[in-house]
Amino acid sequence: MNEPELIARYFAPLAGPEGLGLADDAALLTPPPGCDLVLTTDALVAGIHFFADDPPGAVAAKALGVNLSDLAAKGAEPLGFLLSLALPPGWTERFLADFCAGLDGAAQEGRIKLLGGDTVTTSGPLTLSITALGAVPHGGMVRRRGARLRDCLYVSGTIGDAALGLALRRAELEREQPPLWAADVDATELIDRYLRPRPRLALAPALRACASAAMDVSDGLIGDLRAMMKASGASAHVDLWEIPLSAPARAALAADPALLDLALTGGDDYEIICAVPPAQAERFEALAQVAGVAVARIGEVAAREVFRGADGSARRFERDRFSHV
Amino acid sequence: MNEPELIARYFAPLAGPEGLGLADDAALLTPPPGCDLVLTTDALVAGIHFFADDPPGAVAAKALGVNLSDLAAKGAEPLGFLLSLALPPGWTERFLADFCAGLDGAAQEGRIKLLGGDTVTTSGPLTLSITALGAVPHGGMVRRRGARLRDCLYVSGTIGDAALGLALRRAELEREQPPLWAADVDATELIDRYLRPRPRLALAPALRACASAAMDVSDGLIGDLRAMMKASGASAHVDLWEIPLSAPARAALAADPALLDLALTGGDDYEIICAVPPAQAERFEALAQVAGVAVARIGEVAAREVFRGADGSARRFERDRFSHV
Repeated sequence: MNEPELIARYFAPLAGPEGLGLADDAALLTPPPGCDLVLTTDALVAGIHFFADDPPGAVAAKALGVNLSDLAAKGAEPLGFLLSLALPPGWTERFLADFCAGLDGAAQEGRIKLLGGDTVTTSGPLTLSITALGAVPHGGMVRRRGARLRDCLYVSGTIGDAALGLALRRAELEREQPPLWAADVDATELIDRYLRPRPRLALAPALRACASAAMDVSDGLIGDLRAMMKASGASAHVDLWEIPLSAPARAALAADPALLDLALTGGDDYEIICAVPPAQAERFEALAQVAGVAVARIGEVAAREVFRGADGSARRFERDRFSHV
Repeated sequence: MNEPELIARYFAPLAGPEGLGLADDAALLTPPPGCDLVLTTDALVAGIHFFADDPPGAVAAKALGVNLSDLAAKGAEPLGFLLSLALPPGWTERFLADFCAGLDGAAQEGRIKLLGGDTVTTSGPLTLSITALGAVPHGGMVRRRGARLRDCLYVSGTIGDAALGLALRRAELEREQPPLWAADVDATELIDRYLRPRPRLALAPALRACASAAMDVSDGLIGDLRAMMKASGASAHVDLWEIPLSAPARAALAADPALLDLALTGGDDYEIICAVPPAQAERFEALAQVAGVAVARIGEVAAREVFRGADGSARRFERDRFSHV
């Protein structure tokens, strides 16, 4: 099967009308009038951002999901995406079929269509890059900077699940004993959070309406929060007990309290942190509820960084953020 | 140096205002009013699309150039691009500095700004993917399909230089004797054509004004022409002696006439083929001349494929196109 046949068989069914059936040399998109475009790119490499043995469909969904997560955090509605795929030696059509099925599922959930792409081979590991486009009403993109002193800090969903899930997944793949803390923990849910990001697209309208700044949590809550505060020329005062944890994450931390560091700096959460002026807080919470996305107020924008534990004492985080480079 | 520092030092200087200093999580682009967006993605992998020993600046310029070539062929004016870069083990800051200098040069020549990107590491070869955005007046994109019977077929610049240059470059890198045909040939010019595509952006207005169909020649003239004709439900009648060749390519073909196959199917030309209705031919040639781009009329759209040699006999091309997959 040559490249045009591969494209027609596996990728063209995912394309919207703007993709021109993936039969032209470019996609053609008429931007929605009165809107700005929001553009983001994320690359994933096997062995670095995912395990080579992860299910192909989950890898594809993750590659799209991490980009959708960026769009969501910027308050953008998805318009379309382009995919670059470098296939490693020994790739099979079965792999491609599973990959595209996962991509299709994630694209349908995210209401986003494939616009175009490029498929090549590599002597190295599977490598994907997705560029996603979204739209916001003109002037409406939520920036990383813009938070002001005393703005409320919110985080969506729960934090730390994916980092704990990654630890469990690694033990599983390397046929090691699961860590001691995993004894009474629902491993499936945590691993699923690692494998399948859930981009918080439903939160985009609430962010546009109320947030002074926002970003997605991809490299760990602590580091990403610091990055957002730094961009705004401020710091965060966080009450650590307010950080939302899932039931399995709470169980893991109860078994090994030292896991808090991993949970808060480990990355791959794909939740959203945002700053909301106090006067907008009630409205933001109401809009988030309407959107069906849980949000928790974890602190406020402050002049000096404080992470406060339940006993009132300050807690330091040495590791800043999870970095792939 | 961590990722944000790398970005600030090497990539941020290439970013336009829409890139927000590469300090946010996405780029923000207000599309020009009344325009459609044209979007294209191309990926390049060391060892497949270029040699790992090619100069980093040339690799970067090529990655951008192949995308700009697609925009040009669609009649689009460049708006911006996003870069995914997977750095191999042992990459150095010197590499990155050279890479970005080459990228900057190509971006300035193409009047296009960096909008955003992602830099990761890989255990495999250097891998790049660029997504480029361009704009055309609404409805003005030149499609791959749309050519009609008896439309004139044009090609820009010269064909085959890069394929011959690749053969010379390979011999050079593998410390082999240069091929016999290279004895009286200007190797530098051919190798330069392989290393440094010259996207024909200046031709975009002429294509918009006159072409019924167009695409860039990236995988070999014969195969790409067939692809364009197939999309239009037609075939090409080509007078082979009208295909424009550079002086060194003519010298090479004089020494070894069998090289014609390589020259016409070898790929990496990054010239443009287009179909132009006869009534528009004179205007197209005038607009191309104003743009400073040489174009040659090589034949016409026909019901049946014919590649005619100088002696009037038909010539067959078995190898259809250069394919990386």
